[in-house]
Amino acid sequence: MLLLFEDGSEFLIDLEKDKKMHTHLGVIDLNEVLEKETGDIIRTSSGKKGYILKPRLIDEIMNMKRRTQIVYPKDSSFIVMMLDVKEGDRVIDTGVGSGAMCAVLARAAGSSGKVFAYERREEFAKLAQSNLTKWGLVERVTIKVRDISEGFDEKDVDALFLDVPDPWNYLDRCWEALKGGGRFATVCPTTNQVQETLKRLYELPFVKVEVWESLFRPYKPVPERLRPVDRMVAHTTYMIFATKVCRKEEI
Amino acid sequence: MLLLFEDGSEFLIDLEKDKKMHTHLGVIDLNEVLEKETGDIIRTSSGKKGYILKPRLIDEIMNMKRRTQIVYPKDSSFIVMMLDVKEGDRVIDTGVGSGAMCAVLARAAGSSGKVFAYERREEFAKLAQSNLTKWGLVERVTIKVRDISEGFDEKDVDALFLDVPDPWNYLDRCWEALKGGGRFATVCPTTNQVQETLKRLYELPFVKVEVWESLFRPYKPVPERLRPVDRMVAHTTYMIFATKVCRKEEI
Amino acid sequence: MLLLFEDGSEFLIDLEKDKKMHTHLGVIDLNEVLEKETGDIIRTSSGKKGYILKPRLIDEIMNMKRRTQIVYPKDSSFIVMMLDVKEGDRVIDTGVGSGAMCAVLARAAGSSGKVFAYERREEFAKLAQSNLTKWGLVERVTIKVRDISEGFDEKDVDALFLDVPDPWNYLDRCWEALKGGGRFATVCPTTNQVQETLKRLYELPFVKVEVWESLFRPYKPVPERLRPVDRMVAHTTYMIFATKVCRKEEI
Amino acid sequence: MLLLFEDGSEFLIDLEKDKKMHTHLGVIDLNEVLEKETGDIIRTSSGKKGYILKPRLIDEIMNMKRRTQIVYPKDSSFIVMMLDVKEGDRVIDTGVGSGAMCAVLARAAGSSGKVFAYERREEFAKLAQSNLTKWGLVERVTIKVRDISEGFDEKDVDALFLDVPDPWNYLDRCWEALKGGGRFATVCPTTNQVQETLKRLYELPFVKVEVWESLFRPYKPVPERLRPVDRMVAHTTYMIFATKVCRKEEI
Repeated sequence: MLLLFEDGSEFLIDLEKDKKMHTHLGVIDLNEVLEKETGDIIRTSSGKKGYILKPRLIDEIMNMKRRTQIVYPKDSSFIVMMLDVKEGDRVIDTGVGSGAMCAVLARAAGSSGKVFAYERREEFAKLAQSNLTKWGLVERVTIKVRDISEGFDEKDVDALFLDVPDPWNYLDRCWEALKGGGRFATVCPTTNQVQETLKRLYELPFVKVEVWESLFRPYKPVPERLRPVDRMVAHTTYMIFATKVCRKEEI
Repeated sequence: MLLLFEDGSEFLIDLEKDKKMHTHLGVIDLNEVLEKETGDIIRTSSGKKGYILKPRLIDEIMNMKRRTQIVYPKDSSFIVMMLDVKEGDRVIDTGVGSGAMCAVLARAAGSSGKVFAYERREEFAKLAQSNLTKWGLVERVTIKVRDISEGFDEKDVDALFLDVPDPWNYLDRCWEALKGGGRFATVCPTTNQVQETLKRLYELPFVKVEVWESLFRPYKPVPERLRPVDRMVAHTTYMIFATKVCRKEEI
Repeated sequence: MLLLFEDGSEFLIDLEKDKKMHTHLGVIDLNEVLEKETGDIIRTSSGKKGYILKPRLIDEIMNMKRRTQIVYPKDSSFIVMMLDVKEGDRVIDTGVGSGAMCAVLARAAGSSGKVFAYERREEFAKLAQSNLTKWGLVERVTIKVRDISEGFDEKDVDALFLDVPDPWNYLDRCWEALKGGGRFATVCPTTNQVQETLKRLYELPFVKVEVWESLFRPYKPVPERLRPVDRMVAHTTYMIFATKVCRKEEI
Repeated sequence: MLLLFEDGSEFLIDLEKDKKMHTHLGVIDLNEVLEKETGDIIRTSSGKKGYILKPRLIDEIMNMKRRTQIVYPKDSSFIVMMLDVKEGDRVIDTGVGSGAMCAVLARAAGSSGKVFAYERREEFAKLAQSNLTKWGLVERVTIKVRDISEGFDEKDVDALFLDVPDPWNYLDRCWEALKGGGRFATVCPTTNQVQETLKRLYELPFVKVEVWESLFRPYKPVPERLRPVDRMVAHTTYMIFATKVCRKEEI
């Protein structure tokens, strides 16, 4: 559950019987949490008031153990919409990293869909497996520990998401795995990577090539003094999109 | 299908046998489109080359007949993630308008989920019904022609999206319909509306109140001259989020 | 002078003979700085290399002792251009605060121009006086310790900059002080203040009313990995501009 | 003068006796404008109300005849502040183009300062000369029709602004012309140009290398419905700044 206190502290916890949690706001008796409903009030030993909430996938992602840079929810939600992932889709995700994007794709593909998740490094594959299990999405995902320069096992996938430092080296492999009209997306933090990726993209039968970046600005939610916060995220990544066509020239 | 030509023109068409379509690029023989695969090349009567693509939901939304301001995909994808809508969820959407947001919610709720869509104006309800039918999502949606000041029929919904000019007048009704821990979102184009909505939100048992806006900036995808485009969307709407708790004070 | 070291540390110092400065990079002998030219290299006692530079006005402003929120240079440079302040202009600045905006206005008005600077609080007037003296601009400025609700002494000023928490209460006084066609600017951190100010502005003979905000995004200046920094300033202030006309209705 | 009408139309005109101006709002009698004061009301032959205003430099620049891309005022005001140009400064501007940036630099340098303006193309040099004359700034500027690959005549200038498609080819010439601690700025529309410029900058004795971009967002100035406009400028240019030091290594 997610416990939210009035000072804004949030605790994302696994509920266990007869356990107590020690915090700067006092001790929280997890039995009390177990007995109550989502939305109810609890009190710490020092009388601080908290609310019992269910974590969203976005909360899980932002709070998970991670050892890699992740695709931020502001970007991953847009990518999934641009990739048009929907119930029943077959999707490739690579490299998997901590599994954040994989979870977002798996949620969109639904229980009848499938995400084929390629990750070169054993330890990240395990971390992603563990995160996806915790989030109840692991059944929709097949994780393969594999270097993608060998290519993908799947053909005719509906969409493919590529997250590696050198996307330009794998675009032909991505093209091979996609179905005609299939959607491709990749992310690059630097403009140099975007340039290299675009160069290679135009050599392959891809159309509808687009590059985007997003800025999300939070406001101080005070009705009498409504204004943006002082500082915000300036940059996460550039997003590149393309659509596979069968060929560019007629035979 | 979506036909994309090399000058960037896109035509979103309903395929019918033995029909021809007249365009500034020449005549398109729809039989030829029907015989070919997604991703294939077609030619107009004047020899212009086009590609056969499947429209994404985002293409359908941006090209649909609409008589109302819609929630743009850049915002709707973020809202769905903030609302944490997932397979099997029961969600309220109101006012429906042309059905764009309803479609995005229905897609996220999956075939086992349900969207209860309230719309006061008969003609918009019909337009939304027709759009949702075309997009294959109508079975997941129940449209009700109703003024929401009477309240909602449903209780304990997982999430609720409110899109009306005066959100502050319906927040108590929204609170009643949500389950404990349920997620609420609304959109307002002006700062004045945001202020009014926040004032009323704080009078009700809602927590995690957040206000966001998004800026999406496209780039000219030219590898040798990579730069943003000249002009962009400056503003669509402010997004307000909150989570229902059962009460703010203990009894 | 401004001393810049290779780890990015900057020291803004007043040069004095036979003094030493103790820093985390070692001791700096100010006599060495005095003997060298701007642009030269100096060494600390621990051999760290530094460069002798002249501070810009922007460096002085960002490093000064201040007890108030200041108008940031990204905004003040735009305001001066919108106010069209130039050599010989007579300008009112109020409230003065630490004197940052006053300095920018005085620089633009030149040695033949004049800034009439009104500040209600004695201690700020003194601080501004001291800062302007240090920056060599004090001769162009007349500081008056005065509550502006009594109005301004000057008539027919070319431009007026108003920086108070409640601009709407002084707009008639500002109008009186400006010449026909004179330029007005004010800054407000919150949308509520902008709304109040606009309401009152439209009741007076002002035209060309504009509201702007600016976002400045720095990049990591690495040629092989060019990208924006991770975080940036999200908001400083809204800027409101208007031009005085003699009347709105003909007599 | 600048005539502003109630439908928002603006006319930037040279006043001449006994002339009439024909507009979509009716005929304007320039004698009437000549007789009245700045800030006064005039009427067209069809009774439309207008205001007599003085154009700002910003109005002149945005309305001038131009055949080149200009540096926009939102950027040029920031550049002048970053270059720290002030009364009495000696500044180089190249290439001059239509003279917009030259005017902004000349205004900042004051009547005791000097701008040395280099332009390769005769016709642009003439256009700039004509614009600067009209704006009353020509006495502060010396225009030289010259290819800057030969270098600059001046030494020890306080600041230098470079606006050419290939800045990296002239950075050594710029370094030679600047005094120790002198300020350098250049603008590039594409990320590729920024990368090339940075590479060369780091090979020369420059410090404090910074890259910035600015976004200015206007609001609809309606107090009851305050919100940003629908569309805005997405990109003008990247701005690169650096400071000359005498050498990077001690001899």
